[in-house]
Amino acid sequence: MDKKNTVILTINCGSSSLKFALFDYSSLALISKGNIQNIGAESSIHIEDAAGHEERAMQAVPDLETAIQLLTGLLEDSYAPYTIHAIGHRIVQGGKEHYLPELITPALLDAFESLIPLAQGHLPAEITAIRAFASAYPAVPQIACFDTAFHKDMPFTAKYFAIPRHLWEDGIIRYGFHGLSYEYIYQQLQQSSPQEARGKIIIAHLGNGASMAAIRDGKSIDTTMGLTPTGGLVMSTRSGDLDPGVILYLLKEKQFLSERALNELLNKQSGLKGVSGTVADIQTLLEKENTDPKAAEAVQLFCYQAKKYIGALTAATEGIDTLIFTGGIGLHAPLIRERICAGLGYLGIQTDAALNNDNRDIISPEGAPVKVRVMATNEELIIAQHTQQCLHTH
Amino acid sequence: MDKKNTVILTINCGSSSLKFALFDYSSLALISKGNIQNIGAESSIHIEDAAGHEERAMQAVPDLETAIQLLTGLLEDSYAPYTIHAIGHRIVQGGKEHYLPELITPALLDAFESLIPLAQGHLPAEITAIRAFASAYPAVPQIACFDTAFHKDMPFTAKYFAIPRHLWEDGIIRYGFHGLSYEYIYQQLQQSSPQEARGKIIIAHLGNGASMAAIRDGKSIDTTMGLTPTGGLVMSTRSGDLDPGVILYLLKEKQFLSERALNELLNKQSGLKGVSGTVADIQTLLEKENTDPKAAEAVQLFCYQAKKYIGALTAATEGIDTLIFTGGIGLHAPLIRERICAGLGYLGIQTDAALNNDNRDIISPEGAPVKVRVMATNEELIIAQHTQQCLHTH
Repeated sequence: MDKKNTVILTINCGSSSLKFALFDYSSLALISKGNIQNIGAESSIHIEDAAGHEERAMQAVPDLETAIQLLTGLLEDSYAPYTIHAIGHRIVQGGKEHYLPELITPALLDAFESLIPLAQGHLPAEITAIRAFASAYPAVPQIACFDTAFHKDMPFTAKYFAIPRHLWEDGIIRYGFHGLSYEYIYQQLQQSSPQEARGKIIIAHLGNGASMAAIRDGKSIDTTMGLTPTGGLVMSTRSGDLDPGVILYLLKEKQFLSERALNELLNKQSGLKGVSGTVADIQTLLEKENTDPKAAEAVQLFCYQAKKYIGALTAATEGIDTLIFTGGIGLHAPLIRERICAGLGYLGIQTDAALNNDNRDIISPEGAPVKVRVMATNEELIIAQHTQQCLHTH
Repeated sequence: MDKKNTVILTINCGSSSLKFALFDYSSLALISKGNIQNIGAESSIHIEDAAGHEERAMQAVPDLETAIQLLTGLLEDSYAPYTIHAIGHRIVQGGKEHYLPELITPALLDAFESLIPLAQGHLPAEITAIRAFASAYPAVPQIACFDTAFHKDMPFTAKYFAIPRHLWEDGIIRYGFHGLSYEYIYQQLQQSSPQEARGKIIIAHLGNGASMAAIRDGKSIDTTMGLTPTGGLVMSTRSGDLDPGVILYLLKEKQFLSERALNELLNKQSGLKGVSGTVADIQTLLEKENTDPKAAEAVQLFCYQAKKYIGALTAATEGIDTLIFTGGIGLHAPLIRERICAGLGYLGIQTDAALNNDNRDIISPEGAPVKVRVMATNEELIIAQHTQQCLHTH
């Protein structure tokens, strides 16, 4: 087959957003990337080529199907010289049976349908996207790349909850997420600082969804998210881990609460939004914190819980050599990084105010015991890599 | 009033056990203590005087009321020279309105009734005991001593969950428990090592119920249990903190699960028992761990989670000077202490094998950065102290 001008399309699909990228099939050089945000309302569309030329537009995009039509139209108009050779999807959850990148078949799609209860906020949109692309490009293979793969081989103690073990057999175990992001970050560290990559590492992926992973000897040995992306850290609208008694109490005392309402409460109305009362976005909260005590409290709770999880994961790795911040908040909120690290000097974690405010690659002072790094993630490239590899082995 | 031979009776009442003690009203010298275990079946009764003379008996005790009749009979027969001046009760949960020791009135009992959903496993028995003693000794004042009091002034970040803040107003906040035990341990440390008591301290109260408290400047600044005693560490039959997604998934997929069944699952069938499949007792699990992999896994999970919580709480205290083990497991299971501490050398936590196996007061090596201590708790004495003080101020 002539691989000239053939590309891999990557799709990273949220409930109200669609990120995509085009990579050269052979070299995996980026050709273009973009996203459609705020689907369901007045959406923003953003496209950027490899040279960094950007186009932005606003347009009403009522649903994901329309977003995908928009994207396929764009691919035909603006990227006509390219042939899509494969489509790689980020799939948040593959259950106990699916971790490694895999060709999507009707049987696999059926499996995803049955896994929806494990990732109600993510899988439905991902399935919709797969079906839409299958109908737009029926001859193009689609590959599932799972966000859980990076944590697949966590030790027993990290993988299992202290609940009756027959529930483990039903798939109720800790999967962990953000695996494509962790894989990219770890790969970068291996390339730039192979010695450091062999050490004890905590990666904090802090965005609207937020998690941390503890890495030792190159392997994920624990992570904060659990069966679902609701667990672990305080997030924009998710509670993170809770005393189960909180939920039992709500069920008993607020009997109007259906499972669906409880799901909405803990996934959409909690976290920063629940504490601030209205605002789920940390940058907005930082702007308001001097005038709005509730905004200040939301930020405090976010940073405090992040700090405690660094403490907890450091017990898993039995010490720490490198702390890496990534994700939207990790990358762009120096104040949050500073507050999370404050008081962790006893672990050797220090930040330098000037380096941190500059968002530099390394924000710990020269010679500090723990390297504190800021790194941009690139889940798209990992999806493209896995898609390429998966096709090679078929 | 003649205080000669007047005593304080303390009552510490679980769902299937009744612990009691008699203290001299003025000096608070212990006169006698005992317990009735395994109420509802063939119960064991144990009484011990201040000189350590013990009596043990087995007897069918069908319910708590019968246990209290047995106790009041015993008080009339064997302790006839003493007059009960006041009865102090350990009360697990007083909600947002009741933290400090308080005279029990009919209004307070009504308040306790309304708080049952916050502590379903504990409060009903405590209320039953109060009513039974009120009827046996109508003229004797009864004092409520709350297990939450020690944590009353935790900072905002420790006290609140990242859930919609209107739920905080409904009383859904972190109370924390084992407060009477923590208070005793801290009091002892203050007396024996005042300098150390001003440091950064973590107390691990490990029994069938297990929790940890982080103490700085003499105050509880965080603790592992939450709204209810179900949260935090892995316990004998309780899950500890969970990804809320686990419970949402169970509710959606196992629709036969009522709130009551879910409560039973997470409070009675989880923890060590859930993981081992049958056994909730750590000593039995340790005996079986070489021949039963599930027993070994239960022990591993218990120790791993305890270790992570020490890590997390050390982030709260921003370092650690003293780690204190107490509670049945903390006091009598050197192997568990050793495994929890293993790998925490990066915090300065070390144990000396000989000192640890001997259950010595200090089990860290001479000169180690962190003092690791083993201390017996005495909730009864704290209840007696509070009862005495509470009557003095009335």
